[in-house]
Amino acid sequence: MDNALDNILRRAAKLMLDFENPQVYAKGGHADFVTEADVAVQTFLLEELARAYPGAAFFAEEKEGNVLTDRLTFIIDPIDGTTNYFRRRRCSAISIGAVENRKPVFGAIYDPYRDEMYHAERGNGAWCGTERLHVADAPFERAVVGFGTAPYYRELFELTGRTMARILPQIADFRRTGSACIDLCDVAAGRSDGHFEWRLQPWDYCAATLLVEEAGGKCGGILGGEVVYDRAMPHLAASARIYDQLQQALQAVWQEMN
Amino acid sequence: MDNALDNILRRAAKLMLDFENPQVYAKGGHADFVTEADVAVQTFLLEELARAYPGAAFFAEEKEGNVLTDRLTFIIDPIDGTTNYFRRRRCSAISIGAVENRKPVFGAIYDPYRDEMYHAERGNGAWCGTERLHVADAPFERAVVGFGTAPYYRELFELTGRTMARILPQIADFRRTGSACIDLCDVAAGRSDGHFEWRLQPWDYCAATLLVEEAGGKCGGILGGEVVYDRAMPHLAASARIYDQLQQALQAVWQEMN
Repeated sequence: MDNALDNILRRAAKLMLDFENPQVYAKGGHADFVTEADVAVQTFLLEELARAYPGAAFFAEEKEGNVLTDRLTFIIDPIDGTTNYFRRRRCSAISIGAVENRKPVFGAIYDPYRDEMYHAERGNGAWCGTERLHVADAPFERAVVGFGTAPYYRELFELTGRTMARILPQIADFRRTGSACIDLCDVAAGRSDGHFEWRLQPWDYCAATLLVEEAGGKCGGILGGEVVYDRAMPHLAASARIYDQLQQALQAVWQEMN
Repeated sequence: MDNALDNILRRAAKLMLDFENPQVYAKGGHADFVTEADVAVQTFLLEELARAYPGAAFFAEEKEGNVLTDRLTFIIDPIDGTTNYFRRRRCSAISIGAVENRKPVFGAIYDPYRDEMYHAERGNGAWCGTERLHVADAPFERAVVGFGTAPYYRELFELTGRTMARILPQIADFRRTGSACIDLCDVAAGRSDGHFEWRLQPWDYCAATLLVEEAGGKCGGILGGEVVYDRAMPHLAASARIYDQLQQALQAVWQEMN
């Protein structure tokens, strides 16, 4: 991967881990928190990426007025898994996706707790460090599926709960780490077979969508359509083997509720 | 903690990690798997514990005809988080609880991926290595709660799904690691505020129940009553701050469904 990006991510992670007791602020949505570390890491990333990639635009979680154009744009989550971070669950990562003409062209996710650097470039495979990643090939009935609860959107709780009740009998089990981008790295690495969330933001899935696709998996909208990078969407990622089945099962729950 | 127990757990973990591609077998229940590593680790534990604690009885996940009496009995899960183990999710642990007169007197849980030894002895606190553990003090509306899906019991899926939909709006968020004893260690360490599963087995919660209680938390039946160690039960563990509220919220879901 790009040396500049690797270096920026590792320095950002050091900044993140150096906070001993980061101050936590409520952002307004249900259980939507930001810490002083999210803000500090994002400020660092915006400055360093602007220096390393002159002319690039930015689209980031803790930034106002995000607009996506056709030029090279970094879509950034300074700390994915903020609640895990301040609860010391050691399950959070920094995600940087680079989009051009509204499609991801390269990206990287750094998990500082395991010192794992996930990275992908369009057409060159998905990697964790120097290890090439491939999605799993488990059948649907043996699938382990990660999910997000869309915790900031109360109107989706009933749908998420119903989804659990309906999907669980069809697969092996669910997982919920609290970091969408780590869940998506797990899909790319074959440690799980899929991941969905009824409302997910581009900074959560931008780099990881490319990673899953380059690992041989598929990503798209739960209700159909391609992944978009300028607004929140119901996001689905899965191995090639179970993608269609998981999508149909999720759509059946949606139809039952609507 | 007891040196013999520490030594046995670490050698068992080495055995567990030495399997490169453990053979997986279905056990009969929905998504209920066992690997050759579970069996090998349990055989090792039974032999070594019998040598170190002559006269002790055993109650273990991969053993037939478990009966609990008043004498010193080790309640053992050779690998808690078996699916995580064979999917390489690096989130599994070995759990050994020692019960006398049907109550836990000491116990330890070893997580070999993080090299963390959790241990407790009745009246002497809960520890991770040499660090004393304390439950968190977050209010219910900010609580992070782990849960199990009781994945082997199809008749509980609807209840588990409904529970998610009903509880999620009242707390900050859910987590699902796939290892009950690691979830319970998280409660003891204050990294989450509670954990429940509508049907959990004694080997999953025996050592960890003592750990949570010694860390200042509470454990019991979701529908009331004390923790029992001779059969499966609906198990609840939480910080002292949220235990009653979480229990009432779970009981309300049960009443709605029954």
